[in-house]
Amino acid sequence: MIGVYGANGFIGRNLLSRLVAGGVGVRAVSRRFDEDTVRSLSGSVEFTTANFLDPLEMAASLQDLSTVVQLISTSSPGLKNEHAVADIKENVIPHVEFLQSCLQAGVRRYVFISSGGTVYGPDAMIPTPESAPADPICSHGLTKLSIEKYIQMHGKVDGLEYVILRLSNPFGPGQEFRKGQGLIPAIMDRYRKGLPVRVFGGGLARRDYIFIDDVVDAILAAIELAGPQQAVINVGSGETRSVLEVIETIEEVCGISFEREWAESRKTDVDVSCLDISRARKLLDWQPKTDFRDGIEKTLLGATAP
Amino acid sequence: MIGVYGANGFIGRNLLSRLVAGGVGVRAVSRRFDEDTVRSLSGSVEFTTANFLDPLEMAASLQDLSTVVQLISTSSPGLKNEHAVADIKENVIPHVEFLQSCLQAGVRRYVFISSGGTVYGPDAMIPTPESAPADPICSHGLTKLSIEKYIQMHGKVDGLEYVILRLSNPFGPGQEFRKGQGLIPAIMDRYRKGLPVRVFGGGLARRDYIFIDDVVDAILAAIELAGPQQAVINVGSGETRSVLEVIETIEEVCGISFEREWAESRKTDVDVSCLDISRARKLLDWQPKTDFRDGIEKTLLGATAP
Repeated sequence: MIGVYGANGFIGRNLLSRLVAGGVGVRAVSRRFDEDTVRSLSGSVEFTTANFLDPLEMAASLQDLSTVVQLISTSSPGLKNEHAVADIKENVIPHVEFLQSCLQAGVRRYVFISSGGTVYGPDAMIPTPESAPADPICSHGLTKLSIEKYIQMHGKVDGLEYVILRLSNPFGPGQEFRKGQGLIPAIMDRYRKGLPVRVFGGGLARRDYIFIDDVVDAILAAIELAGPQQAVINVGSGETRSVLEVIETIEEVCGISFEREWAESRKTDVDVSCLDISRARKLLDWQPKTDFRDGIEKTLLGATAP
Repeated sequence: MIGVYGANGFIGRNLLSRLVAGGVGVRAVSRRFDEDTVRSLSGSVEFTTANFLDPLEMAASLQDLSTVVQLISTSSPGLKNEHAVADIKENVIPHVEFLQSCLQAGVRRYVFISSGGTVYGPDAMIPTPESAPADPICSHGLTKLSIEKYIQMHGKVDGLEYVILRLSNPFGPGQEFRKGQGLIPAIMDRYRKGLPVRVFGGGLARRDYIFIDDVVDAILAAIELAGPQQAVINVGSGETRSVLEVIETIEEVCGISFEREWAESRKTDVDVSCLDISRARKLLDWQPKTDFRDGIEKTLLGATAP
């Protein structure tokens, strides 16, 4: 049985509906579930409530799981570095405890969603391969990197199989606005509130945006990958768009016009982030299928959240 | 003024006496001080008691310091990985808080003692340069690596100068027996208790041992290094000795004979650890001066602890 942790989030809900469609036995684990999520998937999914900060609840949720997909994250790239201690307490420590519980419970494979946009830091070559040095400049990236290192330690010492997916910037239907997470929901949130769109540093920062269906494809491939695996794999589009281009694409697709509010760039942001996805193509036999503009259309016009 | 944190420990006491001999203004900070330490250095050193786990005490100790030498570490390579959460709580978190206090207090340079023996992990090339991937297999190494990454983040984001010294295995007069730390004191501790010397994995594990005077030379060079610096530097002998060779050298030097007790190797130990010290030679204009056998003589015969 596959356990999806953080099942009520953006990626979690999209992953669940695909797993269910594929007839796979799934336990969905989250601190809480939206009624919609439960209703749309009831019958085929085992819903378990557990608080990530409670090691006993988390350990109890692991029974009979062979694979764990870990999507829980309470930090985000937008948070200030002053938040570092809280990020360690709320993310790294519960994660380290959870990994030990996974080993005790006999979990074989651990699929972890890391952050390709923040683990590498500003000096990485573009596009960035997995072998690039990881020197994050934000607490979120450091948190993700620390967790990766603990997973890899248990891989080496205890033989845990793992696939670490370093995601670029996922977007798509069902991504809700949450501070510091997701440019497109942030733009739409400001628009719906009648506020100007805030553009940092001239809107020139370039990011690698990946559509949620492509992300889910990669996670499914990581779950199914044959043989004992211990791999770190970038998952992105391999292309970049500037913040301004994203804003303009939304304007074109939706036929609207945003008012801009210009703000100074944040020093924990990198200028360009773009992942080299050769390894994902080869190892996961995967490739991104949804063009950026198509993704924006699916996200903002006509698409319904899962 | 220079602040030496962890001033009552093995490296701290040796560093203090050298700084004092050089007439440098020093504040020695520790949770507690041995009477001997205080007596031998009184007059020239400002002794401040502060608990690393108390952010306010630590912040208060920083006044007027331009350089901080951070030697405090409560984890050790011998501790099991089950100790990981405690290592994070007792080392990483207080460290992250302390770094933020250093920035607020206007500390310009941060000299951190990291672990060249554990941050690289078992797959590193031998001898290991600083550019090798850091993939620790023990909680102690992960703790050190995490702290390094936070220091480097503050270097990039806030302009903190830093010198991270990745030490191999230091030894010398004044190194007391502490579980999992220091092969030579561990051997002597067993001998003095009339117990056989415990030899893991056939005693074939090879380590890079560096005499304390050479370590102190490197720390002094890191303090004095001109210009804004942000560097990670290995400090070791560049040579290796097996556990059995260490035992035999002590036997020869002291004219004694140890009984051996053979034990299985610990899976969190790497087989060989040897640092490439080219960067230290170049950047610090430093080199190890004390031959291993001479170091053993100074440690076990005739030498007095500082």
